[in-house]
Amino acid sequence: MTKIILSINAGSSSVKISVYTTRHRELPKQLAEAEISGLTAPPAQLSYVRGDVQVFKNVPPPDGKIESQDDAFKAILDVLTGDRELPEIATKSDISIACHRVVHGGDYQTAKVITQDTYDHLGKIADLAPLHNANSLRIIKSCMDELPGALNVAYFDSQFHATIPPHICTYPIDPEIARNNQLRKYGFHGISYSFIVRSVARFLGKDPADLNIIALHLGSGASACAIRGGRSWDTSMGLTPLAGLPGATRSGSVDPSLVFHYASDVGKLSPSSTKELHISVAEEILNKQGGWKALTGTTNFGEIAASVDARPECRLAFDLFANRVCGYVGSYYVALGGRVDALVFAGGIGERSDKLRAAVAGQVACLGFAVDPERNAAKVRDVVQDVGRRGAAHRTLVCLTDEQYEMARGCAENDELW
Amino acid sequence: MTKIILSINAGSSSVKISVYTTRHRELPKQLAEAEISGLTAPPAQLSYVRGDVQVFKNVPPPDGKIESQDDAFKAILDVLTGDRELPEIATKSDISIACHRVVHGGDYQTAKVITQDTYDHLGKIADLAPLHNANSLRIIKSCMDELPGALNVAYFDSQFHATIPPHICTYPIDPEIARNNQLRKYGFHGISYSFIVRSVARFLGKDPADLNIIALHLGSGASACAIRGGRSWDTSMGLTPLAGLPGATRSGSVDPSLVFHYASDVGKLSPSSTKELHISVAEEILNKQGGWKALTGTTNFGEIAASVDARPECRLAFDLFANRVCGYVGSYYVALGGRVDALVFAGGIGERSDKLRAAVAGQVACLGFAVDPERNAAKVRDVVQDVGRRGAAHRTLVCLTDEQYEMARGCAENDELW
Repeated sequence: MTKIILSINAGSSSVKISVYTTRHRELPKQLAEAEISGLTAPPAQLSYVRGDVQVFKNVPPPDGKIESQDDAFKAILDVLTGDRELPEIATKSDISIACHRVVHGGDYQTAKVITQDTYDHLGKIADLAPLHNANSLRIIKSCMDELPGALNVAYFDSQFHATIPPHICTYPIDPEIARNNQLRKYGFHGISYSFIVRSVARFLGKDPADLNIIALHLGSGASACAIRGGRSWDTSMGLTPLAGLPGATRSGSVDPSLVFHYASDVGKLSPSSTKELHISVAEEILNKQGGWKALTGTTNFGEIAASVDARPECRLAFDLFANRVCGYVGSYYVALGGRVDALVFAGGIGERSDKLRAAVAGQVACLGFAVDPERNAAKVRDVVQDVGRRGAAHRTLVCLTDEQYEMARGCAENDELW
Repeated sequence: MTKIILSINAGSSSVKISVYTTRHRELPKQLAEAEISGLTAPPAQLSYVRGDVQVFKNVPPPDGKIESQDDAFKAILDVLTGDRELPEIATKSDISIACHRVVHGGDYQTAKVITQDTYDHLGKIADLAPLHNANSLRIIKSCMDELPGALNVAYFDSQFHATIPPHICTYPIDPEIARNNQLRKYGFHGISYSFIVRSVARFLGKDPADLNIIALHLGSGASACAIRGGRSWDTSMGLTPLAGLPGATRSGSVDPSLVFHYASDVGKLSPSSTKELHISVAEEILNKQGGWKALTGTTNFGEIAASVDARPECRLAFDLFANRVCGYVGSYYVALGGRVDALVFAGGIGERSDKLRAAVAGQVACLGFAVDPERNAAKVRDVVQDVGRRGAAHRTLVCLTDEQYEMARGCAENDELW
């Protein structure tokens, strides 16, 4: 039996939905992909690809006012059901499965079919990551209301990291408070890392269970992951996605006392809090008012990389980011005992910025990594592409990571759904 | 002309004073050393060594009630002036120079002879590091009152790190707020790192300006430092000593949003704040209620290392600490481009725990470090002692660091004081 899967990825400023058709335990085939972006920098813009056809590119969404991720989800649903040339979704009832990327899964170690119980539990976890989970939760609620015939499945960015050992995921704080308040390193970007493991293992002709890589998911949110035997051993994000590398608007790790010297009353609730969600002023400052946007004025890393010679603040932001990335590469090289199959770049910046890849590889040359200038400058067309210098001790790869596909693939293999 | 120097090192729970005699531009010679410890775990205890004679060892100080670092300073001063067999200090007026370890020097890049202006400026910096500078400031005040004939000199733990380049010491936050509030990575333990650089360079027969080392000052406060050409290139502590490695009661780096999930109202002033010094509940929690004390119940790392097989929480704390240390070794190996003259262990734990050194060296073996079991187990008697395996790619050393000596040496060379 063929099923239609919606794979829904709600980011901080966009909603991306991919439509797949698949049978049980087969590989999903993509039918269409739609995205509404610019939610935090209006006006919102719609792009829509059906098969190989770019139907819309950055047009105003038909529905008019789109202010939230949930609005964007509903608008995309209308586009899909209204498209005569996508007969697979003639009505909402054609959608059998809706899978959702949820950032913080708390103690959930696997994907979960969403029941009322799961939904309520996710609401409780949301307090650990209010800035990240709230949008997905609202979309899940909409799906439960608007697609009553579909099964909803939550995929958690944290679940891939359930294998991080205790001496790495424990914070050196009061163990009782840590237990009661669920304070430990969770890690994120796990759906992406899971895709990367399978893809790189296939590319290298290895069993995923034997794969040791240092993976870098570098986008407007950025993290690094030490993957040992196909499993997460350590990662740079922590209790929340704030820790570790800086991002577009995120400070990454800073002295934990910094924010108390940044402004007064940072422990108070931010005006963006709601009755259910408690966001401190500090979390708002560190997640929204930092990163390379704060240093350069733009969230566009490509623009920063292109301006390093012209604008000193871009040089600073670029060098700062490369330095922090290289720190994790060194640290995770040690974590893997030097047995590293590849250094893998992924995410918007990892996939597109050959300049950043060259800078990082240059700085970690002493570990045996090197990019080949020509390969590194070539457009990345394959899911995994080699950009390393021939003869280098370790390979350097780029992986076009695909979180929506990874979730759909998981659905095709999940016997609960068939 | 010979001068008597008091070298004063006020820690969080102790005050240590070494007495030196020296001439201008000569190496200081130690006459005596006294310490009062246990300030945070009363009763306070006095130890006193004159020349080679251990005069007191862990006895109750004569003055009775000792509750603060300043009380301890005054009690030690009485012991020194009252000791008939230390004729060099017959009266307070025999003391020509009092040098003080001050944790946070803000923008001061060199030691400073203390005038009223300097003193006032240090008062302002104290707000950046209220938990750390306040005790030294009170002792400096006492010296200005009680030793009117002596020159007071402040040595800053941060000054060694003034050479950290902007892309490493900048936090990715609003640059204007960072500038106004002086928010950047400062780094600490610099007096110790300065001693280590000179001592290791001499041991290796190198010019300090050509020395590349990864130095680990591991004590109840712990940090790592990448030293390139004899200068600090990066270090693990940050705006305050909280960032980086965990310590006896300090969490080290944690997700910067963690503390907001640890307790409510963490932005409020802690009861230990005074009118002049503002300490948030959060800073109190992360500096005083974390670290291996929180995990195991003891601040004594030697006890933890000895109990790893018997007590799982000691195993966890030991492995956690070794893991965090190894992360910095990997990161700083990359920062030095692999051109590393030595990995250097110092500080109470670095000097005494052969078990920790063996664990760290074992985990960073892939970088070319290795300890020799016999050398590593031997008692460390020399200022610098080799514990590395012969034939390893890089050396592994232990350095008996001495902050008081480093300050006295600086005084002997400081033309302003002669």
